[in-house]
This record gives sequence, C-alpha cells and structure tokens, in this order.
Amino acid sequence: MAPTGLWLIGARGSVATTAISGLLALRAKVIRPVGCVSALPTFEHAGLPDWDEIHLGGHDIVDTPLEKRAELLAESGVIPPAVFEAVRTGLSEVDTEIRCGYHPATHAGSQADAARRLSDDLAEFAQRNGLARVVVLSVSSTEPVFPSLPEHATLKALEAAMAVPGRTVLPPSSVSAYAALRAGCPYVDFTPSTGIRLPGLRELAGLSDLPYAGCDGKTGETLVRSALAPMFATRALAVRSWAGTNLLGGGDGLTLADAEHAGSKLASKGRGLATLLGGEVTAPLHIDNVPDLGEQKVAWDHVSFEGFLGVRMSLQFTWSGYDSALAAPLVLDLARFMAAAHANGESGPLAPLAFFFKDPLGTDEHRLAEQFAMLAEWAGSL
Amino acid sequence: MAPTGLWLIGARGSVATTAISGLLALRAKVIRPVGCVSALPTFEHAGLPDWDEIHLGGHDIVDTPLEKRAELLAESGVIPPAVFEAVRTGLSEVDTEIRCGYHPATHAGSQADAARRLSDDLAEFAQRNGLARVVVLSVSSTEPVFPSLPEHATLKALEAAMAVPGRTVLPPSSVSAYAALRAGCPYVDFTPSTGIRLPGLRELAGLSDLPYAGCDGKTGETLVRSALAPMFATRALAVRSWAGTNLLGGGDGLTLADAEHAGSKLASKGRGLATLLGGEVTAPLHIDNVPDLGEQKVAWDHVSFEGFLGVRMSLQFTWSGYDSALAAPLVLDLARFMAAAHANGESGPLAPLAFFFKDPLGTDEHRLAEQFAMLAEWAGSL
Amino acid sequence: MAPTGLWLIGARGSVATTAISGLLALRAKVIRPVGCVSALPTFEHAGLPDWDEIHLGGHDIVDTPLEKRAELLAESGVIPPAVFEAVRTGLSEVDTEIRCGYHPATHAGSQADAARRLSDDLAEFAQRNGLARVVVLSVSSTEPVFPSLPEHATLKALEAAMAVPGRTVLPPSSVSAYAALRAGCPYVDFTPSTGIRLPGLRELAGLSDLPYAGCDGKTGETLVRSALAPMFATRALAVRSWAGTNLLGGGDGLTLADAEHAGSKLASKGRGLATLLGGEVTAPLHIDNVPDLGEQKVAWDHVSFEGFLGVRMSLQFTWSGYDSALAAPLVLDLARFMAAAHANGESGPLAPLAFFFKDPLGTDEHRLAEQFAMLAEWAGSL
Amino acid sequence: MAPTGLWLIGARGSVATTAISGLLALRAKVIRPVGCVSALPTFEHAGLPDWDEIHLGGHDIVDTPLEKRAELLAESGVIPPAVFEAVRTGLSEVDTEIRCGYHPATHAGSQADAARRLSDDLAEFAQRNGLARVVVLSVSSTEPVFPSLPEHATLKALEAAMAVPGRTVLPPSSVSAYAALRAGCPYVDFTPSTGIRLPGLRELAGLSDLPYAGCDGKTGETLVRSALAPMFATRALAVRSWAGTNLLGGGDGLTLADAEHAGSKLASKGRGLATLLGGEVTAPLHIDNVPDLGEQKVAWDHVSFEGFLGVRMSLQFTWSGYDSALAAPLVLDLARFMAAAHANGESGPLAPLAFFFKDPLGTDEHRLAEQFAMLAEWAGSL
Repeated sequence: MAPTGLWLIGARGSVATTAISGLLALRAKVIRPVGCVSALPTFEHAGLPDWDEIHLGGHDIVDTPLEKRAELLAESGVIPPAVFEAVRTGLSEVDTEIRCGYHPATHAGSQADAARRLSDDLAEFAQRNGLARVVVLSVSSTEPVFPSLPEHATLKALEAAMAVPGRTVLPPSSVSAYAALRAGCPYVDFTPSTGIRLPGLRELAGLSDLPYAGCDGKTGETLVRSALAPMFATRALAVRSWAGTNLLGGGDGLTLADAEHAGSKLASKGRGLATLLGGEVTAPLHIDNVPDLGEQKVAWDHVSFEGFLGVRMSLQFTWSGYDSALAAPLVLDLARFMAAAHANGESGPLAPLAFFFKDPLGTDEHRLAEQFAMLAEWAGSL
Repeated sequence: MAPTGLWLIGARGSVATTAISGLLALRAKVIRPVGCVSALPTFEHAGLPDWDEIHLGGHDIVDTPLEKRAELLAESGVIPPAVFEAVRTGLSEVDTEIRCGYHPATHAGSQADAARRLSDDLAEFAQRNGLARVVVLSVSSTEPVFPSLPEHATLKALEAAMAVPGRTVLPPSSVSAYAALRAGCPYVDFTPSTGIRLPGLRELAGLSDLPYAGCDGKTGETLVRSALAPMFATRALAVRSWAGTNLLGGGDGLTLADAEHAGSKLASKGRGLATLLGGEVTAPLHIDNVPDLGEQKVAWDHVSFEGFLGVRMSLQFTWSGYDSALAAPLVLDLARFMAAAHANGESGPLAPLAFFFKDPLGTDEHRLAEQFAMLAEWAGSL
Repeated sequence: MAPTGLWLIGARGSVATTAISGLLALRAKVIRPVGCVSALPTFEHAGLPDWDEIHLGGHDIVDTPLEKRAELLAESGVIPPAVFEAVRTGLSEVDTEIRCGYHPATHAGSQADAARRLSDDLAEFAQRNGLARVVVLSVSSTEPVFPSLPEHATLKALEAAMAVPGRTVLPPSSVSAYAALRAGCPYVDFTPSTGIRLPGLRELAGLSDLPYAGCDGKTGETLVRSALAPMFATRALAVRSWAGTNLLGGGDGLTLADAEHAGSKLASKGRGLATLLGGEVTAPLHIDNVPDLGEQKVAWDHVSFEGFLGVRMSLQFTWSGYDSALAAPLVLDLARFMAAAHANGESGPLAPLAFFFKDPLGTDEHRLAEQFAMLAEWAGSL
Repeated sequence: MAPTGLWLIGARGSVATTAISGLLALRAKVIRPVGCVSALPTFEHAGLPDWDEIHLGGHDIVDTPLEKRAELLAESGVIPPAVFEAVRTGLSEVDTEIRCGYHPATHAGSQADAARRLSDDLAEFAQRNGLARVVVLSVSSTEPVFPSLPEHATLKALEAAMAVPGRTVLPPSSVSAYAALRAGCPYVDFTPSTGIRLPGLRELAGLSDLPYAGCDGKTGETLVRSALAPMFATRALAVRSWAGTNLLGGGDGLTLADAEHAGSKLASKGRGLATLLGGEVTAPLHIDNVPDLGEQKVAWDHVSFEGFLGVRMSLQFTWSGYDSALAAPLVLDLARFMAAAHANGESGPLAPLAFFFKDPLGTDEHRLAEQFAMLAEWAGSL
C-alpha cells in the first residue's frame, strides 16, 4: 500500500509510547503481533498497510523525550527491557516528528489560529515523508466534560466563534479533530473526550468526504462486558444488577477518578451495558485512583441475575491487565483499517470499526461477536 | 401445533423435576419464562408447540414420587414455595406417566427385550394421549465411560449382540436411545453419557429419518467459556492457560467427582475449549464433590494470557448458580425445537441446536454468539 | 442469672426481627446457636443469662407487626420457613412490648420530654417483667452525620438545650442513649450513628456508674479485614492499597449508599484499617445500593502489597452474606455480655467487647485475634 | 552476635537464590527488609545476628552458577534488574561456598559415607570462615513420599542400615538432616519432605542438644487460611466446606502437580485446616502445574459456611504472589532466630517458630495470631 502516516494526539503518553515502541519492534521483528487484530488471518487480504509502510508523528503538550517515556514503561513492566533496547534509536527518530500540541492555557490567539497551526503540522508531515494519507488518532488524556454550546450546531457558527481571539468554544480534543479534517485527514477518537462528536465537526467531515471513527477504545472491563452480556440476553437470563469497580494507577487513574473527568468515561461505559441488556439494570460503576498499581488496571464486576423459576444466581469476574499494552495494538489496527477505508473512498462514521470502541459511532451494535463479524465482512469487501 | 410428548429419561432427577415443575408453572402462569431461550421474541414465529401443547412422561429407575422430589428442591432453594404449591397437583398427574427405566442390575433378559419394553412405553404414551410425536430427552445421571466394542460399529452387529440374553453390549443411555429411535422418536442427549454416539445407533437414526441432538447441556462454566474464549481469539490475545475448578453438591457432585464418571464430563468440557482457542493451552480442570453446596454449583476459572509486547495479564471469574434451574428451561426449549424439526421433516444430527451443548453433534462450532446466530437462522427457516 | 431485659432501638428492623426470631427459636430448641459467640465453650462458665432468662422489648417508629417483618425475612432467605412457623406466636407476644420510638418529625415538645417518655417505657418494661436489669441496644437505621455542637461538651449544657421546646440538639440515636442512661440501663451502640459518643453523654454514663459499648457491629468486610490485615503486618509485608466495594440491598443499601448517611459508616470502616496497617495506605471504599440483592450483601476487597525485593503481589476476596443473619447473633451476645458486666458492677466503655465492633469504644485494638483474647480473658474474670 | 553460617540445602534453587540475593542486597542497603519478620521492631532487642554477620554456603546437586539462576529470576520479575546488578559480584563469591549435594543416583558407597562427606563440608565451612555456628536449612525440591521403614525407629538401627553399602534407608532430605546434626548444626526443614521427621533422627537431635524446626514454609494459601480460619471459629460460624486450587508454574509446579510428590504437600496443607476448624470439613485441594505462570502462584479458596438460623454464606479469595519472594525472607528470618536459639542453648523442636510453617513441629498451634504471639514472647525471653 502507499506510505501512510499515523499522527498521534498525545504522542508522548503511555498508550502512544507503547504503540510507537511496538510498531518499531514489529518492524525489527523482535516481537510477534500478539494483540493486533489486523494481523489475524481473517484480514490477510484486506490490503492493509504493512508495519513498515506506516510513518509516525504526533502532537503533545509535554516534551519529555519518547525514549524517557519508554524507559519508564519498561520499568513498569509494559515494555520488556530487550524490546526497549531494540527500539531505543527508533524512538529518537520518531521524536523528531512530534510537534507541540494545543492547550488553551498556553495559547494566546484564536482557536482558528491554533487549528491552522496543527493542520500545517499535518500537511508538512505528509509532504516531508511523501505520504498518501495521514490517519490522525487521539490518545490524549481524558478531558473534563465540556459544556454544550449553541455554536457547536453548525460548521458556520463554529468557525465564526473559533475566529474570535481568546474565545474557547472547543475543548482541545475538538480543535485537534477540526485541524485533522481541515488537513484532509481521517480521524479516530480513542478517548471519551468530545473530539469529533459535535454536529459542526461531523458536518465538516461530511463536506470533506472523510471517514472517522470512535469513541473510547474498548480495552478492559467493557470488552469483557460486551462478550458476556449477550450470553445473558441470548439465554433469556434476566440480569438484575451489574456493578463495576475499576482500580487504575498511572496518570489515567488520577485523571479518571476525578469525578468531572470520569463523567465522560462513565457515560461511555454505561451506554453499552444499557444497550446490551435492555436498560433496566442497576449498574453502579466506580473508577478509583490507586497510584501504587502503576500501569496496571484491575476491574471487578459482579452480575446478579434471575434464572428459571425466579432463582437468583451470580457471575463475577476480575480483569487484571496493563492498559497501555491492551490499547496500543488497537491503535495500530485502527491506523491500518482507517488507511484502507480512506484509500477505498469511504466517508462518514465507520460503523464496522465498532469492535474497537466502548461507544461506537455510526451504530448501536455493542455485542462483541457481532461487531467482529461486521468488521470481518467489511474488511473482506475492501 | 399438534400435541407433542416430552419423554424424560431420568424423569425423577433434579433437572427433570425442575423442568416438569416449571412447565406446569408456565401453564399456570405463575412464573414468566425467564431462562427459556425458545420464548425470546426471536422465535415467536418459529411454529413451536405452546406450553400447554406439551405432554409429559418418562422413565426412571427410582420411584420417589415427583412431588417429594419437588419438595426437596423447594427446600434447596431451586423451586420457590409458592410455585411448589401451585404445581403440586400437576406433579401427581405427571407421576402416573412415569414408567420403570432400564438398569442392567435389575434386568434379567436380553438388552433387546429391555429396549422393546421401553419402546412399548413410548408408543403407549403417544397413543394414550393422542400425540403427533414424542421427543425423548435424557437427563439421567452421568454414566461411567463405557468401553468401545466392535459390535458398536454397525446396526446389524449391535442388534445381534443385543439379542444375546445376559449380554451388556450397551450402557443404559444407549439402550434408551435405541428404544427411542425404534419407536420413531427424535432423541436428545442432555448428558455426556454415550447415548446415541455410536455408529450403529446413528445408522439407525439415518434409516429412520429421525433428527437427534446433543451432547451434554451447556449450563455453567462451559457456557461462560464459550462466550469469553472468542473474545481472546478475535482480539488476537494469546491464552496461555485456562484452569478450572468446579464445586458441585447434590447427586451430581457425587457422581462427577468420581474420576471414572467424570471422564466423560471432563472430556466434553475440554473439547470445546481446545476448539475455541486452537488447542495448545494448559487447561487443568477439576470437579469436586462438596455435598454442603446442595443444588448450587460454583465454578472458578483463571485465564492467563499474553498481550502486546509479551505482557502477561489475567482474567478470572466465579460462576455461582443452581444447576437444575439452569438446565431445566433448556430441556423445555429442546423439546420445542426438536418437535418443530421433526414436524419439518428434518433428520440426522441437528447442528443448529449446538447453542445448547458442551459437545455439539453435527458441528464443531463452539462460539456462543455464532451458535445463537445458527439457531436463529434455522428457526427462521422452519 | 436474674431475669434480664433486652430493649432494642429499631425493634422492627431486619436485624432486630432476626435477633428476636432467633432468640425465640433458640428457646424452642429448633435451631443451634451457630454464629453466637457467647455460646462457645470458652464462655460456658462466664455466668451469662440463659436464652430463656432474656426478656424482649423495644422502640420503633414504624408499626408493621413483627410477624409481618419476619415473614418478609423468611421470603428473603434469612429465616427458614420452619423456624418462622415455630416462632410466629412468640413474635406476637414480643410485639406487645414494643413502644413508639422518638423521631423529631413527629414529636412536638422538647427533647427532654421525649427522653423522659423513652425512660419511662424502660422503667415500666423492667417493672412489668420483674427484671434485674435492661440492656438497651440500638439497631436502628444509620443516621446522617449530625453536626457537632458546643452543647454536646458537658451534661449540664446538654440538658439545658434539651429542655428548650422545639430545639433539636441531639440526633435520635443520642436521645435514646440519654434515655437509657437516665433509666439506669447499660447501653450498646450497634450502629455508626452518634449515639453515646458525645462528651456530655459519656459524662452521664460515668456519673451513673453504667457500662456501655460500641460502635457499629463488625459483621462482614470489616470483620475479614480485621482478620487479614494483621497477617500482612506480622509478616512485614507492605500493603500499598486496599480497595473495597460493598453491594447492599434492602433498606440498608438505600440508607448507606446515600453519601451523607454513608459518611459515618465509611468513617468507622476506614479507622480500623488505618490503625491495623499504620495509616499510609490508599483505601478507596464504596457502598452501592443494589436493591435486587435483597438482604444479601456482597463485598469485594483488593489488596495490593509489596514483598521482598519490592515485588508486587495481591490478595482479593469476595464476601457474600446475609447482613441480618450475621448481625443478629451478635446482638444476643452483647445482651448477655453486657448483662454480666452490669451485674459485675463494671462501668464506662467496655473495651473487652471490641471484638464485636468496627470502631470500638475504650480501645484502639482492631486486630480480631487480640480482640477475642481480650474478650475471653475478661469473661474468665467475671 | 558471633559470626553465623547459613547453609542451604538446595542452594541453587529459586528460593535459595532469592534469599542469597536478598541478603546481599540488604547488606548493600539497596533494598529495605520488606517481608522480613525478624526486622520488625518487635524483635529489635532479641539479639539476632545482623545481615552482615551471616555467612552463606550450601549444597546442591545442580551446578548452574548462582549468577545465572539469579538472572533467570530477574527475567521472571522476582529480582529487580537494579538489585541483580548490585549483587552480581557477591553471588559469584557465595558460589565458591557451594558444594556438591547428595543424591542416591550419583552416589556409589553407603549413606553413612555420604553423610560423612556432607558433615565434613559443614565443618570446613565453619572453620574456613571462623563461624560460631552454622544453621542448616533445607529448601530443596519436594521429594516423593518415602516409605516408612522399621530402621527409622531408633538411631542405632538407622546407623546400622546406613552403613550398608548401596542401601537407601533414608531419602536425601533425611541424609542432609543427619549430616547437619552430626556436624553439631541446628536444622530447619523449609520443605514438606521427610527431613528430620523420623524418630531415629529426633533421637540424635536430643542426644546432641540441638534445636530444630519445620516443616514446610507457610507462604501463600495456607498463610491466609491460618489468618482466616480462626475468624470463623471465634465467631462460632460453622464452616461446611473449604475448597482450594493452586496454580503453580516453575519447577515447583512440575514437582508438586505430580500426585506422588504432592502427597506430602497436600498432607501438610490439610493438617492445619483440620486443626483450625475441628476436622469435619469437606476440603478438596488441588495443585496444578501451569508452566506459563513462571515464578507466580495463584491460589483460589472457596469457603462455604453456615451462620445464624442455618443461613448459608460464602467467602472466596484469590492470592496471587511470587513464591520465591514470599519464602526467601522467611529463610533469612529462620537463620537469625535459629542462631539466637542455639546461642541460647535451646534444644529439641522449636515450637515458637510455628509461625513460619504449614505443619509446625513441637506444637499443634496453627492460628497465625497466636503463633506470632508465641514467637514474640519467646524472642523477648532470649
């Protein structure tokens, strides 16, 4: 396939650093593509870009070198020491393709100015590397819920407001999405932040004939829920309550345990369960910050259900994983699938990618097996 | 639909008693059909017999009245007291349709004689109640593994051996299957015992144009496994080990914890996992008899898997349920689906019923969602 | 021993109803004293009142008959049907000894008037039944946290404020404690509400030479914690985080999940853990209302700890119990131990009863084994 | 204190390598003594040898250098890379003090000869390093159960049989114990193998006025059980079943999952539970070999118990730890406590060390808190 760019918003974060290290390691053949959905035999003939056809770049608002970030992840057990050594040089090279991201607190002019700068970075990245296309994918920290404004309704109103100096009409995630679309890039929301989910931005995507996908990568508790909930539904077992507790360390724990930030995350987690089960279930959900867990996350779910003759039974599970190791291969998968979709001329929300998201755009399908079937069928048609 | 018989082998066991009580309760409208797959909207137009179109009868080698058995299940928490009161009279009526089962220890003549008696019971039951067809379904205790014999290979050799007085060429489950087929009845194996799984018996089913299904109802640990294992497979996560422990009380615990009996059960549990994951996984599995749990069963599974960059993670679950309450509605479902299949002229192993079994006949599909899709599609074609 | 009264504040609640039913069942010899600490051989010679030397009465603000409450508990699985039948008549008799409790919303005069009425009820109960003493024990619903007031500091200031008509200087739990002390009764706080924990009330207990004990019965998650935390401490393992989630149904779930009410409960749960481990542990704790669980409560705790060479390990447990069945026998135990303490002339906070409480008065000892040793030694000295 | 030797039988195994690395790291002050019981403030004045007063040596039948073994443990996550670097040189030095162990398959002469050689190694080690005493501690692989022989009954019969060339009257663990005693060394059994537990050997210990302790280090599931079982006992809750499953990787998993070897391990695990609970509990127990877990071990226990009014409840826990990291600090603790005991002139089985063992010698006390109290009191008396 033609050379493809993968531009990461939040390029120095844990997920991005793991994805970048992993891609370098795959190219160097020091790891196998475990966890990479796109490497399954199912997708062998889907015309996806090869590992060495993907060029990396990105935005971030911090400037810790990638190599330093990867070293910390190696200490946390996410990146094996041998892999770190193998990709160390490559990380420095990718570092030269990371540009300063946008944050209202450090930006003086209008949001239109900011978006223009971000778009320019994308255009230059494509030109410098001779890329046929650049997939922009956001893995930045989850934002607090951003208030809904009337200016979000149409592209025209939005751009008018963005032109006002000092005015913050969009959260950073949406400025990035806008910049991506303006630069003609397919866009993927891997976080629960607002991003592209505003009528004005979706209007722009439509006008630009660009595909986009999201939201919120499905990597742990919600993944398991989307596999288990259909079991109860197809067996006609009546789920009465589904309680969940998430223990997170790292920066994610800090960000998400904060009630305001967690708002968007909890909402995207809850939506799926309601759809899968029919909406009438008691489903308390917590996210706790447990710094000591580091990159690990632990989720406990307790499902209470009614069976034949009204008998009460229960299922509980504990999921213990490394968030970045679960998310990173999906980031690479999404880059490959989006590149193929764009090459294929697709536009609008890409429902066949629902398999990857907690809160999929373009479909209400939350059942994991059905999502995979959709993905496989779509990929077969590329 | 025309009146249908459901003839239960092991009609006084926990599963049968719960199924019978439940059917009576459904007819009396004192319970909703929770746990009944066939009552889902998906199957509304599949032409299945209604609850009051199903007539009950069966064989058993014990003679405790159904009412007494149901009372014990009420004390164990499987049948609510109010339901028990509502069906008490009905149970006595069903009791009059239960005939003495076959057991080598109490039978003098040849197995051919025994089979003839069982077939006659079926024919009389059908005639007495004006039934269009009788579905025979085995829920008797799991048998020890029965040795493979050359006589099992063909119907001719089998019938010759069965005619020899005092010779035990078949385990009781297979004698029942033979009798069912000879009486022109569709047959369902809800247990892991040998039953219909002998070439000579499958030959007879073919000659008789009869449908059959099995084996071993999927009600707990294996059900969850068939929902979860595809998640690992489609996410390209490499399962390294999948350990399981089952704690069972009741007669089932006693029967299955015994190594020889457990042989067939453990084998049918293991086959599914190997197929779902590709066969190279360490999968120790135990069944322990814990009498104190009564009708409850508890299963703990621990899955260790490898993700991106070789990182190790784990998932564990605990399933806590009432075996009979999980199995009973499926017994009713199978009676309805088999009746429809027979009415529709189908014959041979019914692969679309794989959804209900640990070790499905006629297909290697163990993935729960795919099994449900097969069932729904097939039912839609009836 | 001389006839003893047990007066329950919240006498129609789940815990009280279970305790009353259980005492009647013990007298009728239809159950064994499982769960009753005071029935262990250790306490055989401690001179405790026998089951039939305890007379029951109490206050409540609802008037559902005890028999009706017990019937609901029987349906929830807390009281076996046969036990319910055996104690049904006895419950009606106890009902005649239940008087209307105090609640600010339904009381017109001063809190002094209210307390006087409650005291009179106690005195009449004692006289009517010829009781040597009456142990007052609170099992009423957990109150919202009551603000601290200057008038709480001394008995004098408190009584002056209580005399003001319409003034609410005390929460209901403290009015009950005051009334008990004024009537010369030993007092036990089985809840986390304010109760006797005000300087002015403790002053009164001292002046009256009365023993008292509390607070907050230790029946589930905290019980397990007090057994497990010393394991980490004596093994020099460094606990880094101890997260807990509690799922409660019934009225308790409703009351405690409410953040304000939960305040007192969460505080009393947290204090023990900090003391046991040294206070520097991350310990997020949640209480969720899951109505569908009914009388059941489920707690999940996840402990992350550091071992030799800094290696990280974990322990998690799930406790699944019936709150009332866990609390009720302790209520009877406390009545017996308090009666013996009073007969023995003890006064002030009874530290040897710490074994029963989440937040013990009179001691900082939270280690379960050490608490039991204290109890056994003290009982041996009676 | 005077210089002390710690001589490890199985000196190149995982536990020994971790203990040796840890001691070197403690001396180098690159780790804190987390997991070391003897470093608790309680034992500050017990006169134990300091970390740098302990000299290391040992026997083993394999000759992989310690440095190589430690490197593998570093890769498995048991020894942090930085610690490994800090102790690498030290490990080579200790390596020079490791001598060839005894194994029947590679030994030609009599067991008396073999024992003499082992004793000589001990004497030379002591002399070479100017040691006041040498504690011999076995951490070798668990042996198959060794048959009981009449010659084990007395020291005289035993020595007569040992003198017969080619005769194997003792398992290797007992030959080592004999050699230790003959060399005047205190002896500790950290494994469930036969070791010192033969009348003839205990007779020799008595004659030699030597202290000894064992058996089978309590590091995981049994540790938790000894903390939790007393909770049920003191709360008068009737445990009905206590089921356990252990998943082990590494060499330990391979050795113990084998039924014959596991015999001794399962027996020592079971004895404690029976004593703690009174012996009438259903307690199925499994050890599974799950190579993929590496040095990790996972244990799941399910406790079913009866409470007040016969209500059934349950507690389950999952323990996930690194076996060597749990055992190693206890090895160092035992060396220190045994040295102090020997210096203090104690002899016979050291019951105060029960805290460390699954199957303690010299006492039936299995309750963890009581064991710690015994240890603290004894250490205070040194």
